[in-house]
Amino acid sequence: MTTVRDMLATHPAGLGGVDREKLGRCIEECVACAQTCTACADACLAEEMVGDLVRCVRTDLDCAGICAATAAVLTRRTGGDADVTRAVLQACAVACKACADVCESHADVHEHCRLCAEACRSCERACDELLRTPDLRAG
Amino acid sequence: MTTVRDMLATHPAGLGGVDREKLGRCIEECVACAQTCTACADACLAEEMVGDLVRCVRTDLDCAGICAATAAVLTRRTGGDADVTRAVLQACAVACKACADVCESHADVHEHCRLCAEACRSCERACDELLRTPDLRAG
Amino acid sequence: MTTVRDMLATHPAGLGGVDREKLGRCIEECVACAQTCTACADACLAEEMVGDLVRCVRTDLDCAGICAATAAVLTRRTGGDADVTRAVLQACAVACKACADVCESHADVHEHCRLCAEACRSCERACDELLRTPDLRAG
Amino acid sequence: MTTVRDMLATHPAGLGGVDREKLGRCIEECVACAQTCTACADACLAEEMVGDLVRCVRTDLDCAGICAATAAVLTRRTGGDADVTRAVLQACAVACKACADVCESHADVHEHCRLCAEACRSCERACDELLRTPDLRAG
Repeated sequence: MTTVRDMLATHPAGLGGVDREKLGRCIEECVACAQTCTACADACLAEEMVGDLVRCVRTDLDCAGICAATAAVLTRRTGGDADVTRAVLQACAVACKACADVCESHADVHEHCRLCAEACRSCERACDELLRTPDLRAG
Repeated sequence: MTTVRDMLATHPAGLGGVDREKLGRCIEECVACAQTCTACADACLAEEMVGDLVRCVRTDLDCAGICAATAAVLTRRTGGDADVTRAVLQACAVACKACADVCESHADVHEHCRLCAEACRSCERACDELLRTPDLRAG
Repeated sequence: MTTVRDMLATHPAGLGGVDREKLGRCIEECVACAQTCTACADACLAEEMVGDLVRCVRTDLDCAGICAATAAVLTRRTGGDADVTRAVLQACAVACKACADVCESHADVHEHCRLCAEACRSCERACDELLRTPDLRAG
Repeated sequence: MTTVRDMLATHPAGLGGVDREKLGRCIEECVACAQTCTACADACLAEEMVGDLVRCVRTDLDCAGICAATAAVLTRRTGGDADVTRAVLQACAVACKACADVCESHADVHEHCRLCAEACRSCERACDELLRTPDLRAG
């Protein structure tokens, strides 16, 4: 996904002081996590023991939707609102944490859950790091 | 959208103590607000003075995406996580407020912005009310 | 969802010859069907016999995603492409038919599937009717 | 996005005869194209000559939504319907072609449009190739 960085670099509005490296990484993580959670939800459905995995399907679907919305908000650099960016990043970090917790609990049984937990933890960290940058801390 | 309430009523998992009326109303508001913001973004694009409305298009698109993700989280009643529900409701309220503020500022010139500001305020209120219910306040 | 019609009425671009009544109805059906399919997927997950319903969850999720994308394309009236509108309407009709077929097969056991099959059939019809209007038939 | 391939490899349902390489590539292209179109729509909004780019914003947003829905359908391997897969792939190819045509027309002026046209052409080709595989041709 080198295109994420290329598109940021060609955006006429600039980044308004936001750390380009952390922003680019967070968008990439959100896009990848949304995709991985969509795949994990469906892989859980195909397991014989699907009845034990409904909580995992649920948190996967929530996380996929919130990550996709967050990626889109972060991708837009025109006329945005720092409060919205912060609030959606916080929601994304919470959703990633919840999904990682559930997926980790059967990561030793289902390889797709292990991969998904990794993607969620990585995305959670990227959201937290972006939230700690000065331009997003300020109101 | 009476189907929102009908689908909640036939869900085998029950609502786990969440206020059915407030939940149903919040889902309906999120669905309607996502749709209205999508329409307002496009109506702004068609205005001759689109150059003055880019901030409105932006907040419309952010709000549409966050409302849609929130509606889906609220609609799911199986194995969810109260922290995720709360965080996404908070993000939704913030996005609705931001979009309503921008749309209201030219509500007297563009009827689509006036209607959109109304939908956003109404959705913001529904999110705030649902956030104040005991089962969502608790951790 | 009277707002769908109100927003169409206030759009500065006009409808370019598309039948307003059929367009408005199709948008409403797509929005409602996306929401109902999201709810049915989750209700299936909460059933004890979820193992027998995985095909239903799958067609629900596909249908929800395609209906949401279709609603957004139809809602936009600015600078669109008739080929895209037609192709996404065709995909939407196919997805609604597939989901209705699956949901109907256990509509007598699960009330949420009965309601979902109804929403899908109704949306399929609205897509087919819009596809038959002259401005969408033409290239 | 190596995770796309890893998640396909760990899916318990297998690929049912679909070409793994072409499927994986098509999912990756759809995910990347959705992201690039979202970025291009916003970059167009930030251009001084936004009034000349409204058609581009429109086709970008349509393409982003259809690519995202297509990526999700292709990612799910459980209990799917070949008719739905084919129909959404066809819609995706049409949307990518329409967006590439518009973006190419000012690729020499706006670098973000040049990159977006490339992503759309690449995704269109991946959809067409997947559509030509035997398991998707059959009904």
